[in-house]
Amino acid sequence: MTTVEPAATPASSPVPLDPAAAFALLDTWKVPMPRQALADTPGAAAQAATGIGFPVVLKAVASGLAHKSDVGGVRVSLLTADAVADAARAMAAGIPALNGYLVQEMAAPGLELIAGLKRDPAFGPVLMVGLGGVWVEVLRDVALRLAPVTYADATAMLAELRGAPLLSGYRGAPAVDREALVHLLVRLGRLAVADPDILELDLNPIIARSDGVIAVDVRVVRAPFSTGVTARSARDADAVERVLNPRSIVVVGASTSRAKQGGRLFHYLLKHGFAGPLYAVNPRASVVMGRPSFPSISELPGVPDLACIMVPAEVVPGVVEDCGRKGIRSAVVYTSGFAEIGEQGREAQAALVEVARRHGVRLCGPNTAGVVNVGASTCAAFGMAFEVERMPSGGIAFLTQSGALGSSLLSRCWDQGIGFSHWASTGNEADLTLSDYLLYLANDPAARVIAVFMESIKDPQRFIEACERARATGTPIVVYKAGASEVGQRAVQSHTGSLAGDDAVYDAVFRANGVVRVHDLQALVDGAVALAWQPLPRGRRVGVISASGGACGVIADECARQGLQIPLLPAETVARIARIIPPFGVSQNPIDVTMEITVNPGMVGQVSEILLEESCIDALIVLMTTNADPPARVVAEGVVHAARAGGKPVIVARVGAEFLAPAAIAYYRESRIPLFPMPDRAVKALKAMVDVESAHRGVAASRQE
Amino acid sequence: MTTVEPAATPASSPVPLDPAAAFALLDTWKVPMPRQALADTPGAAAQAATGIGFPVVLKAVASGLAHKSDVGGVRVSLLTADAVADAARAMAAGIPALNGYLVQEMAAPGLELIAGLKRDPAFGPVLMVGLGGVWVEVLRDVALRLAPVTYADATAMLAELRGAPLLSGYRGAPAVDREALVHLLVRLGRLAVADPDILELDLNPIIARSDGVIAVDVRVVRAPFSTGVTARSARDADAVERVLNPRSIVVVGASTSRAKQGGRLFHYLLKHGFAGPLYAVNPRASVVMGRPSFPSISELPGVPDLACIMVPAEVVPGVVEDCGRKGIRSAVVYTSGFAEIGEQGREAQAALVEVARRHGVRLCGPNTAGVVNVGASTCAAFGMAFEVERMPSGGIAFLTQSGALGSSLLSRCWDQGIGFSHWASTGNEADLTLSDYLLYLANDPAARVIAVFMESIKDPQRFIEACERARATGTPIVVYKAGASEVGQRAVQSHTGSLAGDDAVYDAVFRANGVVRVHDLQALVDGAVALAWQPLPRGRRVGVISASGGACGVIADECARQGLQIPLLPAETVARIARIIPPFGVSQNPIDVTMEITVNPGMVGQVSEILLEESCIDALIVLMTTNADPPARVVAEGVVHAARAGGKPVIVARVGAEFLAPAAIAYYRESRIPLFPMPDRAVKALKAMVDVESAHRGVAASRQE
Repeated sequence: MTTVEPAATPASSPVPLDPAAAFALLDTWKVPMPRQALADTPGAAAQAATGIGFPVVLKAVASGLAHKSDVGGVRVSLLTADAVADAARAMAAGIPALNGYLVQEMAAPGLELIAGLKRDPAFGPVLMVGLGGVWVEVLRDVALRLAPVTYADATAMLAELRGAPLLSGYRGAPAVDREALVHLLVRLGRLAVADPDILELDLNPIIARSDGVIAVDVRVVRAPFSTGVTARSARDADAVERVLNPRSIVVVGASTSRAKQGGRLFHYLLKHGFAGPLYAVNPRASVVMGRPSFPSISELPGVPDLACIMVPAEVVPGVVEDCGRKGIRSAVVYTSGFAEIGEQGREAQAALVEVARRHGVRLCGPNTAGVVNVGASTCAAFGMAFEVERMPSGGIAFLTQSGALGSSLLSRCWDQGIGFSHWASTGNEADLTLSDYLLYLANDPAARVIAVFMESIKDPQRFIEACERARATGTPIVVYKAGASEVGQRAVQSHTGSLAGDDAVYDAVFRANGVVRVHDLQALVDGAVALAWQPLPRGRRVGVISASGGACGVIADECARQGLQIPLLPAETVARIARIIPPFGVSQNPIDVTMEITVNPGMVGQVSEILLEESCIDALIVLMTTNADPPARVVAEGVVHAARAGGKPVIVARVGAEFLAPAAIAYYRESRIPLFPMPDRAVKALKAMVDVESAHRGVAASRQE
Repeated sequence: MTTVEPAATPASSPVPLDPAAAFALLDTWKVPMPRQALADTPGAAAQAATGIGFPVVLKAVASGLAHKSDVGGVRVSLLTADAVADAARAMAAGIPALNGYLVQEMAAPGLELIAGLKRDPAFGPVLMVGLGGVWVEVLRDVALRLAPVTYADATAMLAELRGAPLLSGYRGAPAVDREALVHLLVRLGRLAVADPDILELDLNPIIARSDGVIAVDVRVVRAPFSTGVTARSARDADAVERVLNPRSIVVVGASTSRAKQGGRLFHYLLKHGFAGPLYAVNPRASVVMGRPSFPSISELPGVPDLACIMVPAEVVPGVVEDCGRKGIRSAVVYTSGFAEIGEQGREAQAALVEVARRHGVRLCGPNTAGVVNVGASTCAAFGMAFEVERMPSGGIAFLTQSGALGSSLLSRCWDQGIGFSHWASTGNEADLTLSDYLLYLANDPAARVIAVFMESIKDPQRFIEACERARATGTPIVVYKAGASEVGQRAVQSHTGSLAGDDAVYDAVFRANGVVRVHDLQALVDGAVALAWQPLPRGRRVGVISASGGACGVIADECARQGLQIPLLPAETVARIARIIPPFGVSQNPIDVTMEITVNPGMVGQVSEILLEESCIDALIVLMTTNADPPARVVAEGVVHAARAGGKPVIVARVGAEFLAPAAIAYYRESRIPLFPMPDRAVKALKAMVDVESAHRGVAASRQE
């Protein structure tokens, strides 16, 4: 399969449309505008005004005139033809670049909004809407989606504006016609897709009233896409399969010394139990760590699935060529010194890609820290993280665009007993990209959840395809995206352009595609653990059990901060709980079983069962303070038993030192109950689960539309 | 010393002032208002209007009329005396409860604001300001301070409004007269202090223009304070000294079994090395754990400084009485079953306090988990947290209003080698309060920083006094306050009342008194560690060193989120750094020294030195990923050396598993370099330091005013 993708850069300088063309375009898409006409002379303007009916607004038409009203280029409430002609003559005298006039029916006052499109260089058309005036100019209160949008999307965009209450009527004003606004947004989204040459489009202001909406001022900039398209070589699951799940491997540059990266890589493959044929290529050795070593790839006795290449940068293309000639179809290139080091490296990388394509070799990297498939005992990575005695397996697949950060995070997780199915550092993504691995893993049931450390997406359409696949297979994707603080370097002229910054576009992409974004690395790990170990909640209603009033307060605060609810329980449920806990406890949610757990630790499990049976509860958080073994172990047994029967997610936080309750902690871990030392981490992990559930449900709903 | 405090509850129902009285009050305080007059009849209103000059506004005066304009009670732009008389007659016909009329000069349009006061039941008068319209009604965008405020406070209040740009002129409007607004706020603050009977005061709207401000509508509710005052027994540092630093102790209820709390308490006192005379009172034993036991307090051979009381609730008052008769002046009451269990317990607690006062015994608790003075080897606490082998000492004093949460957090910190000077669970605070301990610790140089888990402040004036003392001694106070999500139960009628919720008032108190608030428990610990171990930064400009571009991006994002800056370095500094790091590294801030640290780990120290010498850098964050020993230890030595010479705070984050670099980690810890596993924790800890610095500086500045 060969895919063809348009280049995202405009082929020529942006050209603002003249008003007539802009009106014609918007009229085609049924964007409501006031009655209006263009005129060349004051006399023609007066005549046009008479045709439209008074009062009218007169606007100067002049190229390069950004702020018409500042130079007297806008006159409102003109009541007669003479007034129009006089005003037009005054404009002609005051504005040198005047090309003509726009005469508009004067719109009745209403709520001002702004809507628009911009073409994002990576993701294509982005739709924006916001309230006008201070809302966009001071508060930057806008909602974004990738275009096109469904009616449900457009409705949600309006609802998420901070100023949304104004749409429903404010200070006695009638509610505006939301349906008309929604239709307008949907049409703008379709326009963007139908006319990919649109670079920027602003409707500013739109006047919204109870009887409809009207776009009073429009600005459209088109810039034709380059007609040249870049042919891209086929990508298929087989290429990723050979990288992530090779049956046989050759390490090119395998050293006999573990002090060298090539030696460590070979060592880790052996140490972590790679079971298939494993060869070394090292012209200076006949045996590497007990395995046969060959002087070159051509002399290998077989054709391995994967070549792991750890040789100096200048030698890499030759090795890749050798791979191709031998029939090896995939390679992991660890070597750095390519695009990441600047212009010279970019040239070297382009040359490498050219060689690889010519010889039919698919690449992971270059500049990758490696790939790991825990289930297949394959550790094709060289970082110190893999010094770990045994790679714990689990349901989390972890993709990282930073090898250093990704491998250090992996090592910390392993140290805490958190298991993974796969780990891949995508390197420079000269060939295979994050999206390719994502798509592969979305189809692999071993990956119950995919955690991603992301810096940027190189192939948005492929990424969206992968997300769709992940939703279809019910695989949550949790992302930490770095670069949120990036200052956009491009000069943008439109409101929509300046308001829809890069990070906001990523947010819109994630939201539209069911990807859950977290904002710190710990939350990435914690969310992934909770999603891998526990069933999804059906909603955001949390039951809380603690043995301390203070702890209940902390959980309540954090739930409020994360938008989770702690519902009141029905009276009969409260009564059931009251029969279990001491009279000075709190039997309403959040429940305080009191320090009596020291003598009666079984009550936590009993209360857990009641809460998990309760229809108004979607998930349970148990927060323990110092709670030591042996009572802590009894608490753990009760909670685990309830969780197994409950079919709802259960998360535990234990603030006290771990040495106090090793038996309890081990039991939670082996029972796959997520265990966190701090209450806010428990709540944030649950929030990620709630977000996954609502994202998958939301997308399913908008599909049924 | 006997202090007298007014009760904070009003003695009678709130009484709204009539307009004449409200105007008179505001006039006294020079609050600018329009020319206006009250009139009883339509004729008098017309005459008043003539005196004021046209156009005028006519407003109905009627008790209980909250929304005048909804019932035709406001008429604007009246141009003649006849128009005024007609409008007044129409109002009289339409509004049954009409008492008269207010005739006002019609204010020229301008920017609308709202300002007001409310009396908080705990903290007294709170001053509020916000922009009118959607800003308060939809966005609830207000700034709060405890009254009175300085000019600097009032200026800062205006600056922190999200809508602040409007004050500087928006869409061509001139900037408003900020000075007049500041004066108005300062005057309102003074009014609140001078007239403590004011319950609520709203100026809504205030019209602000370039030539001044004017309060167009006013509403004042007064409710006299109760004249009854509560005599409170003396509080002095000696009482706290005997609790936190006793020279001799008796444990009443000391058990011979460590399975019982009274036995554990005695055991912990022995185990952690209490060096003074230590007695047991236990009628059923003559020896407890090798120490002499006495049947009752009266039979003790000496008079200990402190009695630790762990007996059933009903016996406690008798024991306290025995203490008083013996001459013991302080007691820690661990026993629960007092105010925390409800009405019956509140009565028991009142009775206990009465006995204690009568017999001159000061109380910690009841329902406390105990107190610890690490430097004095005094562990008068019974929780499992104190099973720790040895109590690490350090510069952090930790006060907690939740014994369970506080002791579990302590145990986790100790387990991580974080040392404390003191730890105190304040219990029900029947006598000594959080503020008392705070004041004591502010004077104790062993407490370099005070960390507080807070639920509520019982004695605001005392708390503020303690904060002042802490600032004077340069002791930072970092607070986690639970209950942020608390829903205010009181029905409030004024804008100011409903906008200045309890949690917002705490924020204002903390801000006004140099207290730094954090929003999760981990940040409380991390901030305290950084403040105890490192010098304060002089500003918010951060230098960053990492060995990974991905890590640099994460730090940059988190700094942006926390309002810290990563300044560009001067060219000559960049050149110096470039000579140290590899050519493919990044020598501009944030600096990427690349994975070459594996072979050249010394460069991190060299770059650290350069950054810490740089005048545009206030603090340094070093972020390592997998970085293993022995290079990691070399990195640590370089960073520590630079930190010692630099006199600026240095914080390290290491994401990789701890087993990879035990030598490096130990060296950071013994060198008192705060070390965190996640980059966001490093940035948040630095943010707490920056907040302390600016809070102390800000308060110092406003004092100099």
